Amino acid sequence: MKRIPLALAAAAALSIGAAHAQSAPVFNANISEAEVAAAQSGWCNALVSISTTFANDGREAATALAGRILDDAYGYNLGPVLFKPTLTVAPQTFRTTREGALAYFVGGNPNFPQDDGFALRGWTGCEVRNAAIHINGDVAKTMGNVTLTNKDGSKTTVDKTWAFKKTDDGKLRIVLHHSSLPFQPN
Amino acid sequence: MKRIPLALAAAAALSIGAAHAQSAPVFNANISEAEVAAAQSGWCNALVSISTTFANDGREAATALAGRILDDAYGYNLGPVLFKPTLTVAPQTFRTTREGALAYFVGGNPNFPQDDGFALRGWTGCEVRNAAIHINGDVAKTMGNVTLTNKDGSKTTVDKTWAFKKTDDGKLRIVLHHSSLPFQPN
Amino acid sequence: MKRIPLALAAAAALSIGAAHAQSAPVFNANISEAEVAAAQSGWCNALVSISTTFANDGREAATALAGRILDDAYGYNLGPVLFKPTLTVAPQTFRTTREGALAYFVGGNPNFPQDDGFALRGWTGCEVRNAAIHINGDVAKTMGNVTLTNKDGSKTTVDKTWAFKKTDDGKLRIVLHHSSLPFQPN
Amino acid sequence: MKRIPLALAAAAALSIGAAHAQSAPVFNANISEAEVAAAQSGWCNALVSISTTFANDGREAATALAGRILDDAYGYNLGPVLFKPTLTVAPQTFRTTREGALAYFVGGNPNFPQDDGFALRGWTGCEVRNAAIHINGDVAKTMGNVTLTNKDGSKTTVDKTWAFKKTDDGKLRIVLHHSSLPFQPN
Repeated sequence: MKRIPLALAAAAALSIGAAHAQSAPVFNANISEAEVAAAQSGWCNALVSISTTFANDGREAATALAGRILDDAYGYNLGPVLFKPTLTVAPQTFRTTREGALAYFVGGNPNFPQDDGFALRGWTGCEVRNAAIHINGDVAKTMGNVTLTNKDGSKTTVDKTWAFKKTDDGKLRIVLHHSSLPFQPN
Repeated sequence: MKRIPLALAAAAALSIGAAHAQSAPVFNANISEAEVAAAQSGWCNALVSISTTFANDGREAATALAGRILDDAYGYNLGPVLFKPTLTVAPQTFRTTREGALAYFVGGNPNFPQDDGFALRGWTGCEVRNAAIHINGDVAKTMGNVTLTNKDGSKTTVDKTWAFKKTDDGKLRIVLHHSSLPFQPN
Repeated sequence: MKRIPLALAAAAALSIGAAHAQSAPVFNANISEAEVAAAQSGWCNALVSISTTFANDGREAATALAGRILDDAYGYNLGPVLFKPTLTVAPQTFRTTREGALAYFVGGNPNFPQDDGFALRGWTGCEVRNAAIHINGDVAKTMGNVTLTNKDGSKTTVDKTWAFKKTDDGKLRIVLHHSSLPFQPN
Repeated sequence: MKRIPLALAAAAALSIGAAHAQSAPVFNANISEAEVAAAQSGWCNALVSISTTFANDGREAATALAGRILDDAYGYNLGPVLFKPTLTVAPQTFRTTREGALAYFVGGNPNFPQDDGFALRGWTGCEVRNAAIHINGDVAKTMGNVTLTNKDGSKTTVDKTWAFKKTDDGKLRIVLHHSSLPFQPN
């Protein structure tokens, strides 16, 4: 076997220490379970905050808040969002644009005449119960129930699917949202 | 500036040709739009084939076929699937296991007593109309309507969200499936 | 079998057309082969342009251009870049920071005293020959040879590995770059 | 505002408990930092084990072991691997096939006449020092130094880049490997 001399001098100069010294910086683009939980809680808090703002400060303030929340928590800046809200009907079932999503949450848009403002209905509580969660890199998908509490104490539970995308700024944004009332057998 | 001589001999020996000669093999793990369309059509065809098999050959044959389809087209081999079928009710709304999915499609499982076999209802046609599609690497997400035609000619449209994962064998598998009847305003 | 009536009215109202009408918007975050080729050519052009600017306008202009190129074509805005340039030596072999990368390309930084400016060496041509390419979603990895031509006509070939990440703005950025002179057997 | 009664009965029946009860199964396809460290240590151990097997049991046993290691730890089952070993030369610099990788590690293949078996050189130790690590979903990329110790106590340090892909079976496999001797300034 021919011997090929290797770069021993460089190795000696480098003075390698113990294996796997853990000081190397790690850039991890993945979503953690804690981030998923925080994003879900953030959605709940946002819904209640729009309701509260509407009750205290009126529709204009609630609309402004909802717009900021959409820009922060949904991915309309990336492209069309796969959004099927709970109460929309054909031919405007799917709200792939920011305008359609805002109309759903706060109403008042003549282009979406059937919307009366889902977020303005006096919600005071919101709880998430996941059936299962998938995490694939910077995309997480969840499915489960969300139960909303109204100011009169009544509760509404929906079947809810979300997908979150972590954008370059480190935020989780909703890129898919399918919400539906439970099936009612006759 | 100190000159550092570079490895000219090696370059000469290598005989580089034109820039970007496109003979390099490309391993692309991504999902294409055509694969998404094929996977959706495959789901439609599978549903109709289970109905047809049930009508022609009975429940046992339909159940065997449904099991093979689940193994082929869903991702239960990977982990829990995020599956909210159209007609399930609490406390068995979500079918994260293969057993629960099979029960939904063909019924006959005492552990899922409310299931009567969605795929056995005489479906003869199935069409997909997407509202929008997301493709992120080996995961694709779609949202839109699926319209099913029954043997009596009646049509049922559902709001449908799917996520497909391309596994190492190159197959697209459903890892998320949320189906719901359209909201019915009073 | 209990019959569950489905939402026939909604289906009729929706007027589903042909299956898979292809008007649905598709948001595809993946890298294409063409984008990989363009990013590689862009790197070559950038190197030659820094050399040309240095020759015509001096080091200050070349440094300014190199800074803009780094901000545009490398991912230092995302985090540490895995960059092992061709000619660096320990203990500054790896240039995980923008400062270290800029020093390598244009020199003149006392913090990196061994750097004399790789991009200032009079490069007039640059060709890429890929051995193979991997594309996984918004990350592409390439390995092959890059051959640089100098103003005196001499050629230098290096073994080159790149990984590109497509950021939210749609640009491909280099997040990994390992360049080495070919092994020289004795 | 028209009131739309929601599905209160279903919510009552479901008996939602506290928010975010953490019993939901999570399917996380991502690579962890610990898995990266284990894969790197695994590579080191594999190299030393081939050397040891060669010393104790001869080339045939070492070749069999190397083949098993390649099948287990590299991604040739997925497609071409981006592999630039430390000591290869043109025109066989890149070893995108399993055959080329095996020839590099154990030699003895007339199709790769310059290979004398890198893994047979009596390696007794192997340490990894990362400069930085990227984790993007099921792909992790590392860059740094690997220092090999020979049976005579001499040390060789190389500049090393790896990319690992987590396959459906949960294993990390090397899909990119660029190794080079440190640059030697004159």
